Amino acid sequence: MSSKRFSIGVDYGTNSVRAIVVDLEDGSTLGESVFPYPSGEAGILLDPRDPNLARQNPADYITGFLTSVKRAVVAAKKNPEVEFDPAGVVGIGIDTTGSTPIPVDADGVALALHEEFKNELAAHAWLWKDHTAVEEAEEITRWAAACDENFTSKCGGTYSSEWYWAKILHCVRTSPKVADAVASWVELADFIPGYITGNTAPETMARGICAAGHKALYHESWGGLPSPETLEKLDPRLVRFRYSTRATAVDHRAGTLTPAVAKKVGLPAGIPVAVGAFDCHLGAIGCGVKPGTLVKTIGTSTCDIMVAPLDAQLGDIPGICGIVPESVLPGMYGLEAGQSAVGDIFNWFVQYLTPSEFTKKGNAHENLTARAAALAPGATGLLALDWNNGNRTVLVDQQLTGLLVGQTIHTSAPEIYRALVEATAFGALKIIERFEKHGVPVREVINCGGIAEKNDFVMQIYADVCNRPMKISRSSQTCALGASIAGAVVGGGYKTFSAAIRKMTGVKEKVYRPRKSAVQVYARLFAQYSKLHDAFGNTGEMLPLNDVMKELIAIRRETR
Amino acid sequence: MSSKRFSIGVDYGTNSVRAIVVDLEDGSTLGESVFPYPSGEAGILLDPRDPNLARQNPADYITGFLTSVKRAVVAAKKNPEVEFDPAGVVGIGIDTTGSTPIPVDADGVALALHEEFKNELAAHAWLWKDHTAVEEAEEITRWAAACDENFTSKCGGTYSSEWYWAKILHCVRTSPKVADAVASWVELADFIPGYITGNTAPETMARGICAAGHKALYHESWGGLPSPETLEKLDPRLVRFRYSTRATAVDHRAGTLTPAVAKKVGLPAGIPVAVGAFDCHLGAIGCGVKPGTLVKTIGTSTCDIMVAPLDAQLGDIPGICGIVPESVLPGMYGLEAGQSAVGDIFNWFVQYLTPSEFTKKGNAHENLTARAAALAPGATGLLALDWNNGNRTVLVDQQLTGLLVGQTIHTSAPEIYRALVEATAFGALKIIERFEKHGVPVREVINCGGIAEKNDFVMQIYADVCNRPMKISRSSQTCALGASIAGAVVGGGYKTFSAAIRKMTGVKEKVYRPRKSAVQVYARLFAQYSKLHDAFGNTGEMLPLNDVMKELIAIRRETR
Repeated sequence: MSSKRFSIGVDYGTNSVRAIVVDLEDGSTLGESVFPYPSGEAGILLDPRDPNLARQNPADYITGFLTSVKRAVVAAKKNPEVEFDPAGVVGIGIDTTGSTPIPVDADGVALALHEEFKNELAAHAWLWKDHTAVEEAEEITRWAAACDENFTSKCGGTYSSEWYWAKILHCVRTSPKVADAVASWVELADFIPGYITGNTAPETMARGICAAGHKALYHESWGGLPSPETLEKLDPRLVRFRYSTRATAVDHRAGTLTPAVAKKVGLPAGIPVAVGAFDCHLGAIGCGVKPGTLVKTIGTSTCDIMVAPLDAQLGDIPGICGIVPESVLPGMYGLEAGQSAVGDIFNWFVQYLTPSEFTKKGNAHENLTARAAALAPGATGLLALDWNNGNRTVLVDQQLTGLLVGQTIHTSAPEIYRALVEATAFGALKIIERFEKHGVPVREVINCGGIAEKNDFVMQIYADVCNRPMKISRSSQTCALGASIAGAVVGGGYKTFSAAIRKMTGVKEKVYRPRKSAVQVYARLFAQYSKLHDAFGNTGEMLPLNDVMKELIAIRRETR
Repeated sequence: MSSKRFSIGVDYGTNSVRAIVVDLEDGSTLGESVFPYPSGEAGILLDPRDPNLARQNPADYITGFLTSVKRAVVAAKKNPEVEFDPAGVVGIGIDTTGSTPIPVDADGVALALHEEFKNELAAHAWLWKDHTAVEEAEEITRWAAACDENFTSKCGGTYSSEWYWAKILHCVRTSPKVADAVASWVELADFIPGYITGNTAPETMARGICAAGHKALYHESWGGLPSPETLEKLDPRLVRFRYSTRATAVDHRAGTLTPAVAKKVGLPAGIPVAVGAFDCHLGAIGCGVKPGTLVKTIGTSTCDIMVAPLDAQLGDIPGICGIVPESVLPGMYGLEAGQSAVGDIFNWFVQYLTPSEFTKKGNAHENLTARAAALAPGATGLLALDWNNGNRTVLVDQQLTGLLVGQTIHTSAPEIYRALVEATAFGALKIIERFEKHGVPVREVINCGGIAEKNDFVMQIYADVCNRPMKISRSSQTCALGASIAGAVVGGGYKTFSAAIRKMTGVKEKVYRPRKSAVQVYARLFAQYSKLHDAFGNTGEMLPLNDVMKELIAIRRETR
């Protein structure tokens, strides 16, 4: 029998679940399998009458675990490069989307699995991007501000319609029949570890600090979840959904793999399973997060994660969505920021405003990039705000929109495309500045996600705008890798996360380094961006803007 | 012999000259002919090394007169509806582009007609849109501000590279050989009346107040053109180009048709010829301008003309390009304003930012309009500034650029197209407000030009935004009609312009009337436009802008 050891990471995305079998020695993937959720449209249950609604079938999650893990194990066995033995699997970790709360019965069984509720959309999982609870979120923001604890101080001051309590409150108010049948609401990140370890009883099951702290207003300083008395002020019907379990970090075990599940996936029973966490948080681990490292997951939007030692005694950082002890790594604060739209802005431009010259042949993004990349920084004469989908960090305001300034009667599509890319880079720099201003220095930036991996043009602009080298994660499945690291640690494969991270993660050789001349131009453009940011953002600052267009013209003239 | 009387209007445009033969009774056109200038690209001499250069061959102007008038006369004779007799032509009027100065020799012959200079671009006509003299214009603005007379106070405070002295100064400095050979610089509007009446001697020929007053810093209050002493401070080489003729309005005769020209065009010799003026000014007459009437010529850009009685004792109106006694009608101030780009902005959007969905079949403007017109006012959530080509009135600043705010990741091309149309309407309202604030009430708006005649969608938005009925000129050749009215008056066909205007001009039956609900929404949007206008314009005002995006969202929500 080989002495090699392995762990398994399972990553629940929006449309599918991915399982990987990882070699503990270097974090390399030995077997991998993806299972698209079979229900609804691309795995999402929709309501034609309400575009805000996005639910998922909990049965897909269970089938997804069983199928993807079983196939990943089979694939690892077939891998010719390494001799894989299921007995060498030391642990399993789980990451998921969130906040994705699932209503369950007293045994922890998802309500939607009961015949009676299978056609009730409210009884299914409330996917992170379900926005039916906008009004409830606004109500919670007002309620939280009025409470002594000021609950939302840890999540940027504004509660979101995407989060736990807003969704529960919406269910209570709009689907009372379902709400009455619910015993508890369980985050997907806790639901799966509970299911595969058999620890599903709502009052005793493991609850992850990541979901609880970032989305459910859980904080030790006020005794866990908001007290029954304060919840009652929001809505008395919420009080019974308050669980009193102590939420824990991913270095804790949710339990061990049950014989029944183990058999179905081809693994030995008893393998330790880590407490679950959100995808970006375990993704940060998969990228090699440590104090001083900013991990940016760049896709349609971004998720920006940092950690800071608990003894750093961080105060609240205005505009940072979440500052939660141990939400990423044990012993550290987890800090979460993000941009509401990055790739979504580029996709919008391609879908709605790109002439046939760039769309008729090949990939429109690539065609626009080819022309946009040939322009010198500042040569477009344009400046944009990256708020087409609101601003998550640092303004925490969904009621913001895009802005473009500097266009003439000759401004072309590639010029605007470049300005939009630059705008997202300026937004990224705003987040870095906010971290640094509040005692969290950014000494390194590691990027992952589709755009980071594939787009030289975007990453070079990020390096130039942020005046920092941009590193790219070696793994292209950082979330699943991070989950497997949690599995490795709870299974004893490594004593600490830092030891596991050192061995199992890394960055690519290619690093995007800032170019001096571009840095200088972007510093001037960022000064103008900052003025627009503060003038149109919710700071209410009054600034002289009559030089913005002239400065853009001056920069354009100098760089052409 | 018929007792019917006629006049002829000749309209020199950028690419061609048009002659019309008009019935004095009702202003109807009996014969018409267009002659495209044969030289250069679409009549314009270009320099591949300098995109700012735009010249024209004076020979084209002469050939153009002879050919177009001759053919219009022939066409009128063939007109079956009216019996046309050349002996019934009482007068001829001329309108031209401007400032389009032509260097001439001591006899008033265009220098370019001499063999020696025919290949010198500087010796040809300097077309209005020649922008080679940007630096000289800035120098003149500074010089004018430093002079006791503050010459540019009548033209909005800023001298333009398109104007008379800037072009002459540029020629003096960059083509000294040509400049040395020049005896005088004659505006095209004066050159043609001089040529066809034989009064070409620079020191005695008729000079129109329209060109002199709006472009050459001519004003009676400081004794005509700037004095030799003040011109000397600008550049001593300019002094000899100062003519001391008294510039006159279009009710004056430049002379009478010479036998030689008369013979070539098939008219009797001796027909009175009116002093020439710029196209928009005579166009305003062709639209029926009178005190209280704003005439808008809406095409790629706009020219906005009003008149006010001389005894109104108007002061300077900040931002109005020109306030010149008698530049439009005798006894009246002529006031000129304009928007630097209107149709040019719509064309830019179609050319550079419209996806194939709207361009692949039919006319892109029409396709975008069909979708944009179906939207309710405010439903786009967008707001734009119409400054893609700078702002002529009221900010008088070419160093301004476009701005678009409110876009989301779902904003479509028709929505932006609509916002751009609305932006130009807001710009139009700014001009109306500026007139009214300074003692020039706008009681009626008459529109002409391609967009006014053809575009219901744009004109309805103008009516809604300006909260005023929008009338459309009956004639589609208002400039040539205005020129023919000048001919009619100097030829004695009518005693006064007002009498001629009453009989010979009119508006179409269809009037675009403001719709109450749209007016209310646009008033709210205009308040936001005004804030952006003042914040980004050169007023330097600091305004709170953090409610702009929110107000746009609120309006969108209410109107959807």
